[in-house]
Amino acid sequence: MSTIHHFCGSETGWDWENVLEYPFKPGDTSSKGASGKIMISPQEGAANFVFRYFRIEPGGHSPFKDIHAHDHGILILHGRGIVHLGKENYEVGPHDVVYISPMDEHWLETTGDEPLGFLCVIPGKEMIKKIG
Amino acid sequence: MSTIHHFCGSETGWDWENVLEYPFKPGDTSSKGASGKIMISPQEGAANFVFRYFRIEPGGHSPFKDIHAHDHGILILHGRGIVHLGKENYEVGPHDVVYISPMDEHWLETTGDEPLGFLCVIPGKEMIKKIG
Repeated sequence: MSTIHHFCGSETGWDWENVLEYPFKPGDTSSKGASGKIMISPQEGAANFVFRYFRIEPGGHSPFKDIHAHDHGILILHGRGIVHLGKENYEVGPHDVVYISPMDEHWLETTGDEPLGFLCVIPGKEMIKKIG
Repeated sequence: MSTIHHFCGSETGWDWENVLEYPFKPGDTSSKGASGKIMISPQEGAANFVFRYFRIEPGGHSPFKDIHAHDHGILILHGRGIVHLGKENYEVGPHDVVYISPMDEHWLETTGDEPLGFLCVIPGKEMIKKIG
């Protein structure tokens, strides 16, 4: 059913009412300083896409050299960072949009003293595999 | 291929480098004061989801009593408004997340003196039907 998750966070740590924590695997060292929320997923009845928010602390990064068959749509929400796409690096900041194609090696790292926060959308079937 | 669209807009009129204008039908009166951009679509090779930005001027609204088989994932980016879901109305503001289920009647209207801006994600197959 249709759902509204009202914002209840801060400018450097976005959060919403009644959302799930992103289930990082305990002890996984592929990322550093990362935490996340899941705002739209099968929990809301959504079958086609998933809305996740990731926050990466200063000095941290998303899973290093990540590569997989699903694509990502990203909107940078706060902070600054570098998007690594294969051997290329791109500086990003608030409101920039990034599309990461299937099987493109990628990771994001925070630059500067503020956390990097971004919306990361994936196809719904990927999250259904993970959390059913 | 992976793509970055750097932000090049203002706080009340978001825009990005190398994106498409949303093709509202000329003369369509179902919406009022609405304009849009398409940031991720089949243009970028994206098959699974589409990123659109809509800006609705003060006093305006998205297509009235819209109803269709695809769902929406929405993140409010700037301004304030009301999300109409069937007979219910919900006030929304920056950073709120809205999931609109398939076949739920809906429209958004701007409240206050500033334009309402939001990211609106749909399944990729819907946009492929329109522009693909």
